[in-house]
Amino acid sequence: MDFVSLFITDFIAQLQSPTLAFLIGGMIIAALGSELVIPESICTIIVFMLLTKIGLTGGIAIRNSNLADMVLPALFAVVTGIAVVFIARYTLAKLPKVKVVDAIATGGLFGAVSGSTMAAGLTVLEEQKIPFEAWTGALYPFMDIPALVTAIVVANIYLNKKKLKESPELAMEESLSKQPVAAGDYPSTRQEYLSQQKDPDDNRVKIWPIIEESLRGPALSAMLLGMALGLFTRPETVYKSFYDPAFRGLLSILMLVMGMEAWSRVGELRKVAQWYVVYSVLAPFIHGLIAFGLGMIAHYTMNFSMGGVVVLAVIASSSSDISGPPTLRAGIPSANPSAYIGASTAIGTPIAIGLCIPFFIGLAQAIGGK
Amino acid sequence: MDFVSLFITDFIAQLQSPTLAFLIGGMIIAALGSELVIPESICTIIVFMLLTKIGLTGGIAIRNSNLADMVLPALFAVVTGIAVVFIARYTLAKLPKVKVVDAIATGGLFGAVSGSTMAAGLTVLEEQKIPFEAWTGALYPFMDIPALVTAIVVANIYLNKKKLKESPELAMEESLSKQPVAAGDYPSTRQEYLSQQKDPDDNRVKIWPIIEESLRGPALSAMLLGMALGLFTRPETVYKSFYDPAFRGLLSILMLVMGMEAWSRVGELRKVAQWYVVYSVLAPFIHGLIAFGLGMIAHYTMNFSMGGVVVLAVIASSSSDISGPPTLRAGIPSANPSAYIGASTAIGTPIAIGLCIPFFIGLAQAIGGK
Amino acid sequence: MDFVSLFITDFIAQLQSPTLAFLIGGMIIAALGSELVIPESICTIIVFMLLTKIGLTGGIAIRNSNLADMVLPALFAVVTGIAVVFIARYTLAKLPKVKVVDAIATGGLFGAVSGSTMAAGLTVLEEQKIPFEAWTGALYPFMDIPALVTAIVVANIYLNKKKLKESPELAMEESLSKQPVAAGDYPSTRQEYLSQQKDPDDNRVKIWPIIEESLRGPALSAMLLGMALGLFTRPETVYKSFYDPAFRGLLSILMLVMGMEAWSRVGELRKVAQWYVVYSVLAPFIHGLIAFGLGMIAHYTMNFSMGGVVVLAVIASSSSDISGPPTLRAGIPSANPSAYIGASTAIGTPIAIGLCIPFFIGLAQAIGGK
Repeated sequence: MDFVSLFITDFIAQLQSPTLAFLIGGMIIAALGSELVIPESICTIIVFMLLTKIGLTGGIAIRNSNLADMVLPALFAVVTGIAVVFIARYTLAKLPKVKVVDAIATGGLFGAVSGSTMAAGLTVLEEQKIPFEAWTGALYPFMDIPALVTAIVVANIYLNKKKLKESPELAMEESLSKQPVAAGDYPSTRQEYLSQQKDPDDNRVKIWPIIEESLRGPALSAMLLGMALGLFTRPETVYKSFYDPAFRGLLSILMLVMGMEAWSRVGELRKVAQWYVVYSVLAPFIHGLIAFGLGMIAHYTMNFSMGGVVVLAVIASSSSDISGPPTLRAGIPSANPSAYIGASTAIGTPIAIGLCIPFFIGLAQAIGGK
Repeated sequence: MDFVSLFITDFIAQLQSPTLAFLIGGMIIAALGSELVIPESICTIIVFMLLTKIGLTGGIAIRNSNLADMVLPALFAVVTGIAVVFIARYTLAKLPKVKVVDAIATGGLFGAVSGSTMAAGLTVLEEQKIPFEAWTGALYPFMDIPALVTAIVVANIYLNKKKLKESPELAMEESLSKQPVAAGDYPSTRQEYLSQQKDPDDNRVKIWPIIEESLRGPALSAMLLGMALGLFTRPETVYKSFYDPAFRGLLSILMLVMGMEAWSRVGELRKVAQWYVVYSVLAPFIHGLIAFGLGMIAHYTMNFSMGGVVVLAVIASSSSDISGPPTLRAGIPSANPSAYIGASTAIGTPIAIGLCIPFFIGLAQAIGGK
Repeated sequence: MDFVSLFITDFIAQLQSPTLAFLIGGMIIAALGSELVIPESICTIIVFMLLTKIGLTGGIAIRNSNLADMVLPALFAVVTGIAVVFIARYTLAKLPKVKVVDAIATGGLFGAVSGSTMAAGLTVLEEQKIPFEAWTGALYPFMDIPALVTAIVVANIYLNKKKLKESPELAMEESLSKQPVAAGDYPSTRQEYLSQQKDPDDNRVKIWPIIEESLRGPALSAMLLGMALGLFTRPETVYKSFYDPAFRGLLSILMLVMGMEAWSRVGELRKVAQWYVVYSVLAPFIHGLIAFGLGMIAHYTMNFSMGGVVVLAVIASSSSDISGPPTLRAGIPSANPSAYIGASTAIGTPIAIGLCIPFFIGLAQAIGGK
């Protein structure tokens, strides 16, 4: 069949899948002014259960699979996470009215991964009965952490270079005087801990605290807990009787909430420079295509499944919504959170879920169906 | 078998059904002073899931069924909803110590539908293995909205007539001066929006804002979202794996909460005029019998199932507990909420669930079993 | 096979069971500083569902079983509950730096039962496919209430004797003046109600209010509601479709929370006298062994299953975490809550779940496997 028509047919069919339908439904009822509210505590436990389930799936799968198969996809996840930050540094940061640190932070957030988007991607693949390796969910941290670390390191190198160029003596003073202000701005002790990463004596960025901070966030720690339990214990009974059957249903509620939130945040776009809008629309596709291309290499060399390639692309097209922002806020305190968070949650996430998931599945099926 | 003995046997058997047992259990533990509390956020998500499930069931059923079958029951639902308001206008409103606007508002609330009561009715029917058309849940808005619209229109016509009769000039002034007080009394912007419906220049009531307000409430918007998803997308997987199996269990928790609440509100009855108590006890049976009679017409002419007749009667005997009160409060600001809400939640709802559901099922089985 | 090696093999295998794995996982992520939080409202509904399910299981089982089988185990539960208090009175209370009333209150808390620990025990038995009588969960109140009543009675007898010995006239005055202070300290009306139990005129403790207070707590009232519904109604459909399948999964989340809490409360140990730590470590094993020994009598005389013996031992090794503390605080207002609550939640509960459950299962299997 014709590549384009096959792609379009498939794209439209996927919008009827429960996962995407609930997302679009959420947008529509929010647009119509519905007073429906899902309590915050329910969203918290849903995110916990989804990520624990993804972790358990990954952990059990890794226990039962060949670790060698994972090496190349994991490596490509790391490469993509780092590449996304440099793309933002050399495209978005060069545009008019865009501050360089804001652009780097935005790149970090778009390189980091959204657990909800990944959950949606895995579920749509299952709904379409497209097979993929069960451990692909475990690729999450391999892209998430490198992206955040790279963004914070690149931003700090830039800030130090800039200060030394402008006024070498003043830079040192400012660096010393700015620390307490940043610490006061952020309420938790994490800030104090992370602020130590930028040591004014040697001007080098310490990487380990950034990694530790990422791992401690609620999203990654739920997922890694699930992975550890899947790897080292026998959670199969509770997985089959509880986490697995509840997954799709809980995801449908979360998709509804994300649709409503995305609509309610459309207003935030006005506050953001126009170029952020352009970036947020294009970036999910570009990042996804890079990961899709790398995934195809693994497909041809290591027999990585086409479903797995789609998962890698969806992870790349997603931008972090839970754990990324606090890490970046602590790591690059001079960047403007309304710039990077607005771009990600109001445009990046709905595009990644509503358009990129069907796009990459359609692409995979069109390639596979040729 | 004898009609009466068959009816009584069946009535008692139904009180052992999980749904009604949890309601009665909730009343008993509240009466015994139990300190058990179900968190508010849990009740919210349970109501959302129940109504989304009812909507999904309806939507999927409508997609797969003959629309012509629905016309007569839907029409009868509209007729019942309107009739209930006029019954209150010409019975309750004529009684001593009862204000006419309060009586009309009470009629509106008893004409409107309770999602929880309907959910209980559908579940008891399933528990008793009595077949009914899957789309009957979709009759909800056909009775709910006409009742609320009629109550608000009738109340405003009455208020305008009264004012013109008493003092034509003063009426206009009062109408103008009362608006801001009412708006200040009610915290949301909905009030301001709805208060525009009563335009002092032409003294006519605008109907569309009342409908819009009803549709935006959390109960109806969850149900209509479910219906739309059932009609236009393919939610069968998530329906079968999540919303359908969780339904009865979640309902049992909600019934427990409603039982406890009903008991704790028995004290509110003292504040309400005695005639409200008489009305609240009789109305669910009378409204249900009207709908039951109309349903029997559809049964004999259109082959509408006896189970469907029971659903129609249960919807009619129920009174709105979530979405109705704010709509009425905004639409008839001069009515006393403690009158109509007290009558509905403290007496109407427990009677509808605990007595009317077994009554109408018993009636249907006694008629069917003759 | 050798008794000791069989025991050790089995002990290690059980730490891989989902229930214990989530407990240990919770401790580990808390120790690593994870920011994961499970909302309070979710924990409340989980506890409600677990105890309702245990009650339903027990109620349905009692309805279908021979009541005579229950007499001996229930009697042994009562004996153990009372014995635990007297053990604390004649061991912990005699130690240096330990106040006698604090020791008695601690004994009451360790004699009372934890619903979460019992739920964990029942689940691990199921995971290990060890059969036990379904009604064993119903032994809970037979140990819980006698322990709390005994503790309050023994403490008040001690306090009255002490005052009469020290200064017969002053004792009476103090007894009268202390009442309002205690009542002011505790916010609810329960306090006022319970404070009436100690009538200054006859110095006797009234037992019925203590029993009533225990039955009204959220844990016991959920369980007794479930039992009553299981006994007198037909909840099998909702039990099989909802409460039973959700049980293990919900328990896994609660175990995670309890693991995180246990870790975060390790710091509280410093405030408690060292002897409380020794007591809290040894008591769960000693109490469990007493119940295990009594259970073995029922095993040999009444054919009580080995699984049932383990349940009795686990109930005895558990200490109350939800309903016990408020009852004791009201019944023995002069005892220091930080002493008995710290000992129970920081040490007693994790030891009971993490060590005693595998210990008693291992013991039962080693005896059975000989």
